[in-house]
Amino acid sequence: MLTLYHAPFSRSTRIVQLIELMGISDRIDLRIVQIRRGDGSGARDAANPHPEGKVPLLVHDGVAIRETSAIMEHLMAVFPEEAARTVPRPGTPEHGAMLAWMAWSGAVLEPLVLLKIAGFQHPLLRDSYRDMDGALALLEEALTGRPFLMGERLTPADILASSSFPFLPGGTAEHSAITDWLARCQAAPSARAAEELDAEKAKAAA
Amino acid sequence: MLTLYHAPFSRSTRIVQLIELMGISDRIDLRIVQIRRGDGSGARDAANPHPEGKVPLLVHDGVAIRETSAIMEHLMAVFPEEAARTVPRPGTPEHGAMLAWMAWSGAVLEPLVLLKIAGFQHPLLRDSYRDMDGALALLEEALTGRPFLMGERLTPADILASSSFPFLPGGTAEHSAITDWLARCQAAPSARAAEELDAEKAKAAA
Ligand SMILES: N[C@@H](CCC(=O)N[C@@H](CS)C(=O)NCC(=O)O)C(=O)O
Ligand SMILES: N[C@@H](CCC(=O)N[C@@H](CS)C(=O)NCC(=O)O)C(=O)O
Repeated sequence: MLTLYHAPFSRSTRIVQLIELMGISDRIDLRIVQIRRGDGSGARDAANPHPEGKVPLLVHDGVAIRETSAIMEHLMAVFPEEAARTVPRPGTPEHGAMLAWMAWSGAVLEPLVLLKIAGFQHPLLRDSYRDMDGALALLEEALTGRPFLMGERLTPADILASSSFPFLPGGTAEHSAITDWLARCQAAPSARAAEELDAEKAKAAA
Repeated sequence: MLTLYHAPFSRSTRIVQLIELMGISDRIDLRIVQIRRGDGSGARDAANPHPEGKVPLLVHDGVAIRETSAIMEHLMAVFPEEAARTVPRPGTPEHGAMLAWMAWSGAVLEPLVLLKIAGFQHPLLRDSYRDMDGALALLEEALTGRPFLMGERLTPADILASSSFPFLPGGTAEHSAITDWLARCQAAPSARAAEELDAEKAKAAA
């Protein structure tokens, strides 16, 4: 039994996008919870078992699984056939490269965006994360001649790497390859389906 | 063909630990490279194909795979039988929980340690990462009554989560469960084997 704790229009929307991409929404028990939002609205929800009141949280046969990238990887491992329709098979070099983008999104790109918003620089953080220009250059190179990071099709690598950009101060106007890719990610059927689900759930909760 | 670019006593030592844990050192071509170190020593190595001159980098049949956690997950996927001797099988709830610790180590714990060293606080970073006390409490709870994060045996979850602590200002003296766990991680045969390999390679390079 798989239960996903989800708050509309939040970091957990990325899991809903993957669920739509894999076509497994009938295999997941979706529980809508409230969260405390950055703008001060909302509140921690007693119905959410996440130790910090955050989303996403996946509970699999009673075991709590946190962190967006881990939940995505776990869903692909639980439903290997559904995953194989859209992402490379585990153990192939291409699957490894996809995992690398997924890890990089959480461990490098997201910190870079947060540090940029906070306006903080430090030699140690620069050693670890380099800088936003470097991150954008890496993405631009990867997107040269291909619509998505792994090639012709949207994968969880795109879902994660694209998700921090709405918060990036200054945006990506000077990087048309990235701007175009962000538009493709947003226009993907799985992203549209997740957005519709979120709009509906937000309306029902209001 | 799998080639690991490794610098002794660095973030890539964690990959060597996993290689020792899985007993697959004869399946990996290990290339020792130099890196620029935090103390100013060393330099970027032209022999290292990593786009930023960093380690670890795994090259699998010509495809470059970066990020420690992704490389670990990929090695477990390439050698599933060797992985199954020491970690839960993919798709099981326990495997998902292990992935969660691995993702958390890079996306939450490492930023918290770096921000602590840098002495920087900000509401936005706090919203995303909470604080070191919360992270330590989470680890302590997970280690209550079990020697390692996933139970009786050391897994990549322990290798990654333990690896930031040598850099934590103030250490963990007030948290004996964590201090004891760090000692167990360090004393593990795979960690000792990696340390010996690093000492030998560092000596050969000097
Ligand atoms: N590193 C976590 C971050 C999760 C996270 O911060 N989620 C936000 C939603 S955008 C949240 O639940 N915030 C509520 C809170 O911090 O209380 C992941 O990627 O899964
Ligand atoms: N997020 C990366 C970080 C890799 C990293 O920063 N590696 C350090 C070694 S401790 C490095 O290669 N530094 C050399 C440099 O920054 O030029 C990972 O975990 O794999």
